[in-house]
Amino acid sequence: MARIRNFYAGPAALPTEVLEEARDELLEFAGCGVSVLETSHRSKEFDQVHNDAIGLVKELIGLDDSYHVLLLQGGASMQFALVPMNFLPEGGSADYIVTGAWSQKAVKEARGIGNVRIAADSESDGVFTAIPKQDQLDLDSGAAYCHLTSNNTIFGTQWSAFPDTGGVPIVADMSSDILSYRFDPKPFGLIYAGAQKNLGPSGVTLVIVRQDMLDRCSGSLPTMLSYKTHADKNSLYNTPPSFGIYLMNKVLNWIKRNGGVDGIEKINAEKAKRLYDAIDDSDGFYRNSISAGDRSKMNVVFRLPNEDLEKQFVAEGLAVGLVGIKGHRSVGGIRVSIYNANRLDAVEEIVSFMNNFSEKKR
Amino acid sequence: MARIRNFYAGPAALPTEVLEEARDELLEFAGCGVSVLETSHRSKEFDQVHNDAIGLVKELIGLDDSYHVLLLQGGASMQFALVPMNFLPEGGSADYIVTGAWSQKAVKEARGIGNVRIAADSESDGVFTAIPKQDQLDLDSGAAYCHLTSNNTIFGTQWSAFPDTGGVPIVADMSSDILSYRFDPKPFGLIYAGAQKNLGPSGVTLVIVRQDMLDRCSGSLPTMLSYKTHADKNSLYNTPPSFGIYLMNKVLNWIKRNGGVDGIEKINAEKAKRLYDAIDDSDGFYRNSISAGDRSKMNVVFRLPNEDLEKQFVAEGLAVGLVGIKGHRSVGGIRVSIYNANRLDAVEEIVSFMNNFSEKKR
Repeated sequence: MARIRNFYAGPAALPTEVLEEARDELLEFAGCGVSVLETSHRSKEFDQVHNDAIGLVKELIGLDDSYHVLLLQGGASMQFALVPMNFLPEGGSADYIVTGAWSQKAVKEARGIGNVRIAADSESDGVFTAIPKQDQLDLDSGAAYCHLTSNNTIFGTQWSAFPDTGGVPIVADMSSDILSYRFDPKPFGLIYAGAQKNLGPSGVTLVIVRQDMLDRCSGSLPTMLSYKTHADKNSLYNTPPSFGIYLMNKVLNWIKRNGGVDGIEKINAEKAKRLYDAIDDSDGFYRNSISAGDRSKMNVVFRLPNEDLEKQFVAEGLAVGLVGIKGHRSVGGIRVSIYNANRLDAVEEIVSFMNNFSEKKR
Repeated sequence: MARIRNFYAGPAALPTEVLEEARDELLEFAGCGVSVLETSHRSKEFDQVHNDAIGLVKELIGLDDSYHVLLLQGGASMQFALVPMNFLPEGGSADYIVTGAWSQKAVKEARGIGNVRIAADSESDGVFTAIPKQDQLDLDSGAAYCHLTSNNTIFGTQWSAFPDTGGVPIVADMSSDILSYRFDPKPFGLIYAGAQKNLGPSGVTLVIVRQDMLDRCSGSLPTMLSYKTHADKNSLYNTPPSFGIYLMNKVLNWIKRNGGVDGIEKINAEKAKRLYDAIDDSDGFYRNSISAGDRSKMNVVFRLPNEDLEKQFVAEGLAVGLVGIKGHRSVGGIRVSIYNANRLDAVEEIVSFMNNFSEKKR
């Protein structure tokens, strides 16, 4: 059976080359006689994998030495709690910009820990179809940080330019679009991302944290819940998720070989354009109601004339090898996730399927 | 190059069959066209892997329906904090039995959260060479729980029979000997284990928790730090470490094919006997000072006449393909870790090496 076109929202498609490399090395890597799955995290072979992955993140994003790159566990959901536990002091307050279900969850966890101000909330009748503009933000210049979600996997929106927070450090959940475009990291105090969309498999969480934030970490946290522990120990305080880090290393190298972030960004723009064109040129058969500048380049969501046609779309797509295109269970419809590892040929295939389907069913 | 004999303390040797299966399926598993590394954690194929792994843990250990099996992240070090955060109420107290470096770390985290009583501490001049006997335990019948470490990887000791806590739930760190022998789970309120020794790769943490403990969980915890969240959501509150769970599933099936826990226990006893016999029959060339009944069947630690000979032992061992036999950096000496996946032939090989080495260097 030919490899399927995988449009899952995460865990998501990985580059075939990466999977092939991992397969070929699965019983022995780095000429050391054992699998990376069974080598000590203190071995020199793993140490190189680990440090190279960290170095590649710095290089690809263009981080200066004020940033620490941590490779942790627990996913973005764990960071929803760790961010306020580490950085929201008693009596202080943090700004949250709410643009979808994930930022709502981040707010919920932060409220359990300290004072939260909502700097903007783009919800309207239970859905989120826009990203707030600068003049719609009610920012607190004294906030400990300003939290945002860079891309919203469920509603299909994405920040095209980050807000000016006037020096308040931005804390961003970039789980679903990290390393898919170039951005200036300087305004960011902390960035976190579950690996399972653009970076590797599930089970590894990338955290990028600026030194001045670490200096402000709460001193009374359990060891494992403090970002300072992991920065001080180069993410090796305890046994890391080593196979996930090894695969992330391979994905980062694959990004580098494919033109780095700039090369990837160019392809991602083209992929998204093809899909949105197919929607916009369908005479209303496919509908996406996101404001033009706020459309996600990672998760393209759309509706068909009715739910029955949506079911047919998913079933007929599956029959021709297009997997993972059902919308999130909370909103329905169709979602086509096109992270870095999904290349133009996969997008061309689903666009062609969309055109055939709408012609047939119109 | 022939596969090396891997005696790492963790991440540690995995069954070769498991690695081969994973390799053969790495680009496509369960006939679904995609890799397990890139399938949704909500797909029916992953759901089966996940639920089968949970079912196998229950079956192999013999857990009744009052126990929940959770597959989490963060390692044992994370549980050091989560256990008291969940179960140590304000004004209450928990008993800790200290038998090595890992239980010391568990105590340190618990002290940051609530009242800790030391029910026993077998440290003597900085080392731990024994497990406390029942009459050496100063147990509090009102304790919220009694914490112990079942096997001590650094000092090479292991509980051969668990203490009678008079109904106080035992909470055990079984990271390094889970599923290596049969035991009665009934006195245990919670068991946790990082997977990377006897269960699979690093990045998955097995937690077994009894319903009555869940009923006592603190209600004010961040969502991800509450055992109740993970029990309520069958460990799928957020994206799980899916590849680690998939490999754990394969290791559990391998245990089942190899006679289950009883079959594994028999082999483990024989493996340990061979190594301790080699030590005890060496006329003092190899020395292990652990009380006979407290010797670990998982981590066999010993010293040579001097550090120079220990260095030679490690280097010459490596030269003939025996990897990972250097003692923990905090104590020095030699450590041979013989978890489930290290079979008798591997032990025979190192015993033969030990005999040759001592003859040559005596």
